[in-house]
Amino acid sequence: PGLMNHHHPRSKLMEFPYVSAPHRNLMVDIVSKVEAHLSSSLLPCTLPQDVEYFENESGTAQSALLVRSAVPSSQIDFILGSWLHCGLPTGGALNITSFSGYLNSSTDAPNFLVELIQSSPTSMILILDLPPRKDLVLHDEYLKTFYEDTLLDDKRKHLEKLVEVKPYFTSSLYIRSVVSPTAIMVRIETGTDEAEQLEEIVRDHVSPIAKEVLQIWLELCACGKREVEQEEMIALAKRDKITKSKTIEIDLGSNLPRLFGEVAAARVLESLKEVY
Amino acid sequence: PGLMNHHHPRSKLMEFPYVSAPHRNLMVDIVSKVEAHLSSSLLPCTLPQDVEYFENESGTAQSALLVRSAVPSSQIDFILGSWLHCGLPTGGALNITSFSGYLNSSTDAPNFLVELIQSSPTSMILILDLPPRKDLVLHDEYLKTFYEDTLLDDKRKHLEKLVEVKPYFTSSLYIRSVVSPTAIMVRIETGTDEAEQLEEIVRDHVSPIAKEVLQIWLELCACGKREVEQEEMIALAKRDKITKSKTIEIDLGSNLPRLFGEVAAARVLESLKEVY
Repeated sequence: PGLMNHHHPRSKLMEFPYVSAPHRNLMVDIVSKVEAHLSSSLLPCTLPQDVEYFENESGTAQSALLVRSAVPSSQIDFILGSWLHCGLPTGGALNITSFSGYLNSSTDAPNFLVELIQSSPTSMILILDLPPRKDLVLHDEYLKTFYEDTLLDDKRKHLEKLVEVKPYFTSSLYIRSVVSPTAIMVRIETGTDEAEQLEEIVRDHVSPIAKEVLQIWLELCACGKREVEQEEMIALAKRDKITKSKTIEIDLGSNLPRLFGEVAAARVLESLKEVY
Repeated sequence: PGLMNHHHPRSKLMEFPYVSAPHRNLMVDIVSKVEAHLSSSLLPCTLPQDVEYFENESGTAQSALLVRSAVPSSQIDFILGSWLHCGLPTGGALNITSFSGYLNSSTDAPNFLVELIQSSPTSMILILDLPPRKDLVLHDEYLKTFYEDTLLDDKRKHLEKLVEVKPYFTSSLYIRSVVSPTAIMVRIETGTDEAEQLEEIVRDHVSPIAKEVLQIWLELCACGKREVEQEEMIALAKRDKITKSKTIEIDLGSNLPRLFGEVAAARVLESLKEVY
């Protein structure tokens, strides 16, 4: 591993600082599994250094990004990992870690998305989904193949049974429209000052479920073969383009300038738009 | 009113028997408001008598339907109201009342749907929505016009604040895909043996909200003008056809034969398919 590290320095992304050990382990595991599984398809990250990691002037807000495009012959469009840390005036901190995998129009299979948003030691929002790339109302077989036959809803039901877990409704109606009917969007809330309890839930429930969903994505979506006709490819590319730019806009468009200033925000968004 | 009743006998639908007064009042109000608002467009119900009302041999299961198509020049496809009562082996009863309004392809505006499913005096499932008729991911302006600018989500939030109200996840992933991001899908559960409390929630919260959503539908959707191009009309007609037949299949396809026997079920489904 020493030699490996020498030749391929780990990105700042993989540090996932400020979050609990189970939370960090989950994110590192996800990124590692994807990179290992798709290694022959992925190109190195080409983000400029000041986009791979950046902070605000006072150092209270920090963020790291990793974007890897893929070789044209693969079904992968790109993968995107990020963490964001931001000290809050209350003394607490906001920590967001996320990972997404986007496929290209040679397949119509769903993308992958996991995001953990922690605004206190006892409260976390989890978003975990395989967002569909077609209108499910029109495509029966697609709903069956990716959402019914995979029993994805059982994972949502498992989490729903925990007393600490409540459904979460994001304020963005667009995000609600983009996710699948089996999307896990929950708020996990544990007793006051019991950070340990939340860590246990991440380790014992969130982590195994996130890895199972990732496994489905890697095998069935990223590497499974689907017949896509020329006309459909065009429709997929159009829809993908919209979802990617809207997602950037909603996710980063308002947060980055506020946290890091206009200049840094513009630099980061420009770099990302090259890949999107 | 005496004269009116003589010329236009009220349908069995409007009796909404077996349910509480606030529940019945809500359903009668909704059907009446729609019939009054759209009276110039709606044709009389042409269902055969044994489809307008039917029961099983032992009389433990009963149901009434009302379907009214519309004149071709209107934006209405048809309206559909129903109630279903079914005695349970436990001594309790299942009561489902529903009303939907479907628009035709001269407009792309959303449909209307309200359904109350009561399986005990202290527990009810409410589904209330303007189901979209286009892929919201692709149609930004549509999402804004019908779901954001109308502040529909405020109504969901209002109900969500009541301690008796919990989000409800239907087991049908198709139904989850068909509804909008502001759909109200909740389970209302009150203390043991306090039927009165549930009735109060229906009267004070469900009823006003359902009528507000209906009002939005009547003004903005059923009667608002939208530009729809020829090509889009074809796409709308195709999508509408799928959602209507899938909804029948899921809603009635399994329940009717089980409750009323194969013969009655086939007769009812045939009649409905003529309108759908």
